[in-house]
Amino acid sequence: MNEVIQTILNHRSHRHFEDKQLTDEQIKTIITCAQSASTSSFIQAYSIIGVRDKEKKKKLAEIAGNQEYVENNGHFFVFCADLYRHTIIGENEQIDVTPSIESTEKFMVALIDASLAAQNAAIAAESMGLGICYIGGIRNNLDEVTKILKTPERVIPLFGLAVGFPTKLNEKKPRLPFEHVYHEDEYEQNKEVYLGQLQNYDNLISNYYEERTDGKRKDRWTEQMARMLDRKSRMYMKEFIQKNKLDRH
Amino acid sequence: MNEVIQTILNHRSHRHFEDKQLTDEQIKTIITCAQSASTSSFIQAYSIIGVRDKEKKKKLAEIAGNQEYVENNGHFFVFCADLYRHTIIGENEQIDVTPSIESTEKFMVALIDASLAAQNAAIAAESMGLGICYIGGIRNNLDEVTKILKTPERVIPLFGLAVGFPTKLNEKKPRLPFEHVYHEDEYEQNKEVYLGQLQNYDNLISNYYEERTDGKRKDRWTEQMARMLDRKSRMYMKEFIQKNKLDRH
Repeated sequence: MNEVIQTILNHRSHRHFEDKQLTDEQIKTIITCAQSASTSSFIQAYSIIGVRDKEKKKKLAEIAGNQEYVENNGHFFVFCADLYRHTIIGENEQIDVTPSIESTEKFMVALIDASLAAQNAAIAAESMGLGICYIGGIRNNLDEVTKILKTPERVIPLFGLAVGFPTKLNEKKPRLPFEHVYHEDEYEQNKEVYLGQLQNYDNLISNYYEERTDGKRKDRWTEQMARMLDRKSRMYMKEFIQKNKLDRH
Repeated sequence: MNEVIQTILNHRSHRHFEDKQLTDEQIKTIITCAQSASTSSFIQAYSIIGVRDKEKKKKLAEIAGNQEYVENNGHFFVFCADLYRHTIIGENEQIDVTPSIESTEKFMVALIDASLAAQNAAIAAESMGLGICYIGGIRNNLDEVTKILKTPERVIPLFGLAVGFPTKLNEKKPRLPFEHVYHEDEYEQNKEVYLGQLQNYDNLISNYYEERTDGKRKDRWTEQMARMLDRKSRMYMKEFIQKNKLDRH
């Protein structure tokens, strides 16, 4: 197993960091790695905002549901889908790019582009001995986040990435069974097989929690998911995205 | 510079592969690495379909605009946003998860999850000496692709990943300037600075093409982008996604 695969498989989220900032060189390496990812038709439809300002970090931590590691880390990056750049390009080249830019297709392209870049950043950081945690919680209130980061229209902050020098080694949580996530030639058509895989995974996760909490917790994964999805969350999103003139048609 | 960062920075797309298939072990390693990526609230909202069947690969290559490397490669993966799994979970747990699952927020979550997984797969493959190419072209006709792969409702094939033993070393294309993609504390507010960065990049790209084509080609990046965005493409996407009961409200 090579060093790259070791790094990838060794991933776990980190939520406790030393009070020590990343160097400018580390930040530059992480961003350069992010930019090295593939991009759909060379569109490069994303931007990354690094947040150093303590007040801003504090506010972002509150928005994310008081996640203190959003405030206390080695550096906090915000990955944004960005089609503002291409809006400006259209203006300069005097071409009406609006119908294209406002399509669901281009919204998807920007999300995918930003995410591929982010994962490169995450792996690069981890390879340097740093710990990372993705922060979807900034989507709790994007109206506020866009004000804090002063992003123009058509720039959507998607998630944060807290990076830092980890102080505590978390455990890895087992993922869905390989054969449940990976299909060959066609999606699994046999529902019994499909449900059986989920049940096996439920047992695995239930045991995982039971062992780690002295029996206090033993919820199944499907139970966890149903509970989570029973709560509607961030239902303002469609309106927000469309107000930002994306995903409109 | 460690091996991981070297692998990431060495990325380029490959479109010519030996006639040699990946081993099952290589496929398993790539998928396991994909699954090792972060996932929003442990939701794991994606699936991956490996395509071996020659007829299916041929059809996918046609859909992607006759990209022959979709047909001829070491293995072809299709990364899908997947909220079908969670639909089934809702049914089994007798909880109405529909409003949550059909939200724009959860559509975004699934896209991000699938993309983070894909980039892990890409890096893992590259670390094994394999070449990769993302194939957005499958989105030219998702109605057909979902028939070929027999995906249920709420499974959206997002892009392919052609992987194989590369026969030709492509060049890396220079990315947008670091300071144009990376902002600190807030998005760049000075439009002159912003435009200046784009102009510098235009010169860089123009020279890049000129040198490599003996002066036959010297288009600027912004020109390329405006031209691309002038063509409306895949405008059926919103209807397709909503027909698949995602991104509805």
